[in-house]
Amino acid sequence: MALFDLPLAELEKYRPTVRKPADFDHFWTSTLDDAARFEPLIAVDPITTGLALIHTWDIAFAGYAGHPIRAWYSRPAGTQGHPLPVVVEYPGYGRGRGLPVERLLWPSAGYAHLLVDTRGQGGQYGNGGDTPDPVGSAPSAPGFLTRGIGDPGTAYLRRLLTDAARAVDAALALPDVESAAVVGNSQGGGLAIAAAGLNNRVDALLASAPLLCQVERAIGITDAEPYNEIVRYLSVHRRSAERVLNSLSYFDGVHFAGRTTAPALFATGLRDTICPPSGVFAAFNALGTPLHRKEIAVYPYNHHEGGDAHHVVRQLSWMNDHLPV
Amino acid sequence: MALFDLPLAELEKYRPTVRKPADFDHFWTSTLDDAARFEPLIAVDPITTGLALIHTWDIAFAGYAGHPIRAWYSRPAGTQGHPLPVVVEYPGYGRGRGLPVERLLWPSAGYAHLLVDTRGQGGQYGNGGDTPDPVGSAPSAPGFLTRGIGDPGTAYLRRLLTDAARAVDAALALPDVESAAVVGNSQGGGLAIAAAGLNNRVDALLASAPLLCQVERAIGITDAEPYNEIVRYLSVHRRSAERVLNSLSYFDGVHFAGRTTAPALFATGLRDTICPPSGVFAAFNALGTPLHRKEIAVYPYNHHEGGDAHHVVRQLSWMNDHLPV
Amino acid sequence: MALFDLPLAELEKYRPTVRKPADFDHFWTSTLDDAARFEPLIAVDPITTGLALIHTWDIAFAGYAGHPIRAWYSRPAGTQGHPLPVVVEYPGYGRGRGLPVERLLWPSAGYAHLLVDTRGQGGQYGNGGDTPDPVGSAPSAPGFLTRGIGDPGTAYLRRLLTDAARAVDAALALPDVESAAVVGNSQGGGLAIAAAGLNNRVDALLASAPLLCQVERAIGITDAEPYNEIVRYLSVHRRSAERVLNSLSYFDGVHFAGRTTAPALFATGLRDTICPPSGVFAAFNALGTPLHRKEIAVYPYNHHEGGDAHHVVRQLSWMNDHLPV
Amino acid sequence: MALFDLPLAELEKYRPTVRKPADFDHFWTSTLDDAARFEPLIAVDPITTGLALIHTWDIAFAGYAGHPIRAWYSRPAGTQGHPLPVVVEYPGYGRGRGLPVERLLWPSAGYAHLLVDTRGQGGQYGNGGDTPDPVGSAPSAPGFLTRGIGDPGTAYLRRLLTDAARAVDAALALPDVESAAVVGNSQGGGLAIAAAGLNNRVDALLASAPLLCQVERAIGITDAEPYNEIVRYLSVHRRSAERVLNSLSYFDGVHFAGRTTAPALFATGLRDTICPPSGVFAAFNALGTPLHRKEIAVYPYNHHEGGDAHHVVRQLSWMNDHLPV
Amino acid sequence: MALFDLPLAELEKYRPTVRKPADFDHFWTSTLDDAARFEPLIAVDPITTGLALIHTWDIAFAGYAGHPIRAWYSRPAGTQGHPLPVVVEYPGYGRGRGLPVERLLWPSAGYAHLLVDTRGQGGQYGNGGDTPDPVGSAPSAPGFLTRGIGDPGTAYLRRLLTDAARAVDAALALPDVESAAVVGNSQGGGLAIAAAGLNNRVDALLASAPLLCQVERAIGITDAEPYNEIVRYLSVHRRSAERVLNSLSYFDGVHFAGRTTAPALFATGLRDTICPPSGVFAAFNALGTPLHRKEIAVYPYNHHEGGDAHHVVRQLSWMNDHLPV
Amino acid sequence: MALFDLPLAELEKYRPTVRKPADFDHFWTSTLDDAARFEPLIAVDPITTGLALIHTWDIAFAGYAGHPIRAWYSRPAGTQGHPLPVVVEYPGYGRGRGLPVERLLWPSAGYAHLLVDTRGQGGQYGNGGDTPDPVGSAPSAPGFLTRGIGDPGTAYLRRLLTDAARAVDAALALPDVESAAVVGNSQGGGLAIAAAGLNNRVDALLASAPLLCQVERAIGITDAEPYNEIVRYLSVHRRSAERVLNSLSYFDGVHFAGRTTAPALFATGLRDTICPPSGVFAAFNALGTPLHRKEIAVYPYNHHEGGDAHHVVRQLSWMNDHLPV
Repeated sequence: MALFDLPLAELEKYRPTVRKPADFDHFWTSTLDDAARFEPLIAVDPITTGLALIHTWDIAFAGYAGHPIRAWYSRPAGTQGHPLPVVVEYPGYGRGRGLPVERLLWPSAGYAHLLVDTRGQGGQYGNGGDTPDPVGSAPSAPGFLTRGIGDPGTAYLRRLLTDAARAVDAALALPDVESAAVVGNSQGGGLAIAAAGLNNRVDALLASAPLLCQVERAIGITDAEPYNEIVRYLSVHRRSAERVLNSLSYFDGVHFAGRTTAPALFATGLRDTICPPSGVFAAFNALGTPLHRKEIAVYPYNHHEGGDAHHVVRQLSWMNDHLPV
Repeated sequence: MALFDLPLAELEKYRPTVRKPADFDHFWTSTLDDAARFEPLIAVDPITTGLALIHTWDIAFAGYAGHPIRAWYSRPAGTQGHPLPVVVEYPGYGRGRGLPVERLLWPSAGYAHLLVDTRGQGGQYGNGGDTPDPVGSAPSAPGFLTRGIGDPGTAYLRRLLTDAARAVDAALALPDVESAAVVGNSQGGGLAIAAAGLNNRVDALLASAPLLCQVERAIGITDAEPYNEIVRYLSVHRRSAERVLNSLSYFDGVHFAGRTTAPALFATGLRDTICPPSGVFAAFNALGTPLHRKEIAVYPYNHHEGGDAHHVVRQLSWMNDHLPV
Repeated sequence: MALFDLPLAELEKYRPTVRKPADFDHFWTSTLDDAARFEPLIAVDPITTGLALIHTWDIAFAGYAGHPIRAWYSRPAGTQGHPLPVVVEYPGYGRGRGLPVERLLWPSAGYAHLLVDTRGQGGQYGNGGDTPDPVGSAPSAPGFLTRGIGDPGTAYLRRLLTDAARAVDAALALPDVESAAVVGNSQGGGLAIAAAGLNNRVDALLASAPLLCQVERAIGITDAEPYNEIVRYLSVHRRSAERVLNSLSYFDGVHFAGRTTAPALFATGLRDTICPPSGVFAAFNALGTPLHRKEIAVYPYNHHEGGDAHHVVRQLSWMNDHLPV
Repeated sequence: MALFDLPLAELEKYRPTVRKPADFDHFWTSTLDDAARFEPLIAVDPITTGLALIHTWDIAFAGYAGHPIRAWYSRPAGTQGHPLPVVVEYPGYGRGRGLPVERLLWPSAGYAHLLVDTRGQGGQYGNGGDTPDPVGSAPSAPGFLTRGIGDPGTAYLRRLLTDAARAVDAALALPDVESAAVVGNSQGGGLAIAAAGLNNRVDALLASAPLLCQVERAIGITDAEPYNEIVRYLSVHRRSAERVLNSLSYFDGVHFAGRTTAPALFATGLRDTICPPSGVFAAFNALGTPLHRKEIAVYPYNHHEGGDAHHVVRQLSWMNDHLPV
Repeated sequence: MALFDLPLAELEKYRPTVRKPADFDHFWTSTLDDAARFEPLIAVDPITTGLALIHTWDIAFAGYAGHPIRAWYSRPAGTQGHPLPVVVEYPGYGRGRGLPVERLLWPSAGYAHLLVDTRGQGGQYGNGGDTPDPVGSAPSAPGFLTRGIGDPGTAYLRRLLTDAARAVDAALALPDVESAAVVGNSQGGGLAIAAAGLNNRVDALLASAPLLCQVERAIGITDAEPYNEIVRYLSVHRRSAERVLNSLSYFDGVHFAGRTTAPALFATGLRDTICPPSGVFAAFNALGTPLHRKEIAVYPYNHHEGGDAHHVVRQLSWMNDHLPV
Repeated sequence: MALFDLPLAELEKYRPTVRKPADFDHFWTSTLDDAARFEPLIAVDPITTGLALIHTWDIAFAGYAGHPIRAWYSRPAGTQGHPLPVVVEYPGYGRGRGLPVERLLWPSAGYAHLLVDTRGQGGQYGNGGDTPDPVGSAPSAPGFLTRGIGDPGTAYLRRLLTDAARAVDAALALPDVESAAVVGNSQGGGLAIAAAGLNNRVDALLASAPLLCQVERAIGITDAEPYNEIVRYLSVHRRSAERVLNSLSYFDGVHFAGRTTAPALFATGLRDTICPPSGVFAAFNALGTPLHRKEIAVYPYNHHEGGDAHHVVRQLSWMNDHLPV
């Protein structure tokens, strides 16, 4: 894809006004209060993975409405009794938590690691997920973004983002854990921003190519999936645009970014049509984090893959500075 | 698409063995008994459409577990007190009941007409639907076919097919209705076959390009949607094939065809990769209907559109012979 | 498709200068005078459709040069002797009049209805047409838009638009008809605008996603079919651009819009690359109709399908206000 | 494209039965007799091309019904008074004769060369054509193959093939010409076979990847254009298959091949989905030419491009053996 | 992709005859003897990765003609002095060794791990490679498979496969290493088979979806990349098929499989068009390994991704049985 | 493709600043001096083509580092002893010199003609090439543009452009040659501009749709091949952009254009995404040629094919004016 979004010089100072509901804070306070009525940890079962250096547990924690959300919890073998920072990671769109051998980076680097499942997702490709979404839905476009979107209270995204915020509490409820970073790419990046905005126990935020940032602009400048799910939904529900855009604005990463002051490392590819760079910069520039404690890596020739392993190396180094093992 | 399935001469005598669970009949008897505990009609509200010749009501009837299923009910203006046959119609995949001005054929032809919504569907394209599916699901492929498919009891298809069977009872519970035909194209064709197999009050069956017929073969010879949803699901849930194919066999049109003796008009396009002709013939040849009371229209140069309006004309004529107004 | 044309605020006041030949009016006056030498109705034969509520006739009327153009004429059963408004409808590109069971809306709503065939078209998909175009052509791009386009006098479009204008005369020559609306989508919308501009007996104009509006801009901003036929033709006939653009300007909807004062309901999808919204607004804003008697429905999330049945409902309501049965 | 047609060993002995109308010979005799009523040459005008070694004339000859068909006639400069063999060449589908600088092979090799235009074609891509088809048509699929195909008498192909046969007479009516070869690729190959079958003055036949050979099989095994035009037409005209296939059988290269005894060089690519190799072999094996005077070049790894310039080299060598300058 | 290759029951006993040059063994003996003149290890430099549990070195070893080939060598931190089995891994087509944080599985499982670069590759996507191919080439299709393929002696594949075999020697020349497994997916799977066939110090062979198996059949049944590079090359070099197929037969995995008796775990997806299952089974069934020491995992609903992480889990378990840490 | 680059009015005065290395002139002077150490002609062998009017020789000349570069040399038969201008032609990307029967225009027009092979290319499609590139390369994107691009000294483009410049010396070293034009389309156009800028013996420059002009802008506005090779390379080598763009600037046609004063005929299609028109105009406007001795043909409705044979006719006429035979 050729360059299609704003030029880098404009992106760097891009601070759009993004629709925000008057009761945004109240909506989330009451949502999280409801969720907080449940003890975070439901089950913590050790499993065998064949990985000698890493110990892994199959976790269930209480997400939205106390629904059990599964996660893989891993930490370097032999670190019981040694408090470690925990990296809470969220998967990309369409994936579930997969299998525990898939994401070895953070435990190999010495961190505790909670790989959170995404409710209902995981059946599309990859190696699956294990968390149902027990809530049904009014007619929606194929995919997840528009399920229940007619009202923010029934939206799938409300449940998904609440799960993300609660995952941090679950991680910190585990033994020998002392601080928490949230990390994710694409949908996972969007969830990391939401978790940081909704849970002030987050000590570091790493989001690359985050989805769900300045959604209203994104659906005008790209027709790539999954933002296109929203366009398709609105093309059917022709009179619902205001209502749906209002619902979506409860879940926009730009607002969550404004609610965190955690140090942050972002990333974007300037040719990324899936999560256009303007949305990423809109969220990055809205962060409540002081300037000297946030960075954004720009990959001018990359699409949605962004920096890939090169950015992973940068994340490792950044984490070592901000949340050392 | 070039010809890709069996030659016509083989299709005409094609009677494959299709996997059938031992408790197939029991599964459906108990499912329908449960559904029958609810009175079929929940709401019958007249609406204004601007169509002088046709009167229309917004209906809700009790589907699976008594869930309210919406439908448009139409009949020629001024026919109160005159019993009419009712045509129960099911939409294609991804569509809901849409708007009442969309399907005017059967009331224009003098029939009562019940256009049934499909739970959860309708948000993908077209003019929408109004029936939620209140049941959540384990991880599934995008779309509906694999929701809950890990077990026939939780499968979306169980709910959808039960709705289809109950729609006939709802139609016959309306005033001034004297007999019922079921009709549909693609998914709608599959639902019509299921309704005829599950509800012995069906007096005529019209199915063109029906989905859900000999599914196990279909997923081997085509990679078109929506059968591909199943392939994608199985590609993620690699060890679930036997379990999922077993679940799907509770919903295979070939088995429902064997349970009906209603006169039937089928149709297939020989280049149809979406609903391959072998599945259509497998169901047609399995019908319990006597030979002289069933027909299949073959369109050798057509894809999924089959006979289109040419087949509609044939359906009208056939209906006039079998269920005259 | 993402948004690609002018923003809505600019579209609403968009009044471009469109190339117009000096002899535009003379060209059309003499063209229509020639056509008017033929009696409009050639044949009116009742047919059987199986639709109890609607009576249908197979019509032939005299189009360009008196060539016989076929149409389906329908009206509610039992309305002989009751004058009705007639809705003259034109098909989309590539379709012919099809079969009489395909378009039941207007007769179901109580109107007389003339569904006009399009000469030569109808062999591409759908259910066909019955009207030959007896005139050959110099080399042209596949399709119809560039046949004979080297000269406005020999252009296929001249014949097609004359047929459209004459269809109104044919409709009004039928018994028990009292006024005429023209309606169409895509090519049909372009033909409706042309008919209204060329025949002052048109009492209402309904055009959605009309083709052939500000053609010169359209071929620069979209490469979708069928406008791309023109680009392909010009890519071969590299020195003919001025001549061809001049020819095309005899058939541009913006000019026809300026010639009618009939009340009008337009529609456009803002993501429509087939008939870009700038052309639709250019025609709409050029209408000679007083402001309070014209409306345009804008569907921001839709492509060429625009409002679909939702717009049909609006059309029905609008017609009931402007040309009640 | 992977291999998709019969294996080479079967192709080499492939002699299918191809539908042939009882009046095939009569149809063509009367068609050609009608055409023979016109003097072949209508105009022969020298033009300037800027090519010092080659002289070129713009020709018009009498084709079907005496319609003027254009052609470029070229021969080496300074060969007036020296009788030369003439190579009559037909263009591929969608092209016209283009410009005289485009096809320099045969005059460079010392031959006279007649590059024949194709009526109506030439507006799709390339550099155009100059021959209108003055005959209109009933609804047809976009393209040329199905124009007028409802009856062999009105078929575009009848006119096109008659033009091809008459081109040989025109070439031989030019001064200083002593014998004629016909040559073409794709549609041009089909026309060359037809010309050889219809005009016994052809002394050599070179056809590579010929279209219009065993059409009835081709439309079952490929969905590539232009054969797909026929499928699309039949998908609309659902009841016309027998009639249309009958019409097409008047123009099948297999039958023309049987009518010629001229020495022949054919070619086919085994991965050619546009003109599948089974059709090419069906025609080749049907040739009336003695075995030792016909050859077929097989390119196992090529698609429609076949041997390209490598085959040209072989054609030059073969021509030098059979029709030396 | 629908099922397209042989049915599973036939695959399980599929033992095709594959073209084999008379001097196959001599070719490879002399090739390897030449390479063995160089000491395997050229450079072993520790690097910092930020991974606390794993130590990594940047290695250069002597490949074909002693060319330096780069690799990442990793092993669990703190295992100096403890002999470990080493897993030699080869990348998929188009990738290089990337960055050391990308492949953490085997060191996390307690193994030493040598991730070998692929000469010249790595610039197409992903995170790059560091090994030039210093040898130029005659014209080839884009990509690597056909470079120098006119002669087995100059073929890129000769160099690449020699590198693969020498990588095992390099791995075993490292300190604290006691045995060697080879592993790879796609091209990497093909290289693993070659390494096992060419180097009898291989103790275990893990190949999933291996490329370069029964190449001559593959290029007839699939047109997917990279096999299509060969088709494209042969489509240009029309007379070289025999020579090129002969060259390729020096590098066919079926022959290498016959030369190893190492225990082996293979895998294939039955819908894999990139490395069709018939080739995988042809190699698997040709293995010199005793039946009870070889296994193949079949993924009936998967394409080239095969078992993905599910297969990784199986590989871990299998390795633990055959080459325990 | 719709219009996507600057409007024509802006193109006509488009004079962008293009990155230019300080040692640009020195780099090329030393490169050419090195190449000039070799005698240009290595071999001149007459061949038989079967073309009576044209004599052809198979040439090898000394290109970069004296590497033998093949070419076809043709001239009208019987012109020994008559000095002729020679047209040096370069092929498009992916093609080699092919076969001598493929490009007959210039000898037919009376010119001597040197059709130069492109090292390493020619295996992708068409009829091949005969010139190896004996130099290996670091990892690069598939294709040729990025081979060795990490340093201008090792870049494939350095070798290719030097070959192009040396081809002129080779042509002028042949007997009976008196002046030289360079001509090419696409890559060939870029090579012609380079040859004219690097070799002051060029008397006329004909470049249509030239590649390699204002590369840095091109990779931002198009994602078509082959410019996309550069994007892909930079997407992998994320930190190399400055170095690579610097290397590429040694080969940018805009700089070569500034070094020639030869009369020039350029061409561009305004919808050409492969070689966007802004780059063509940037080079054209940068030409050192006086205004009255340069022309550019603009084809507003054409893509990369531009004027095709229509432009060939214009080239012939222009050549006749500037370098008459």
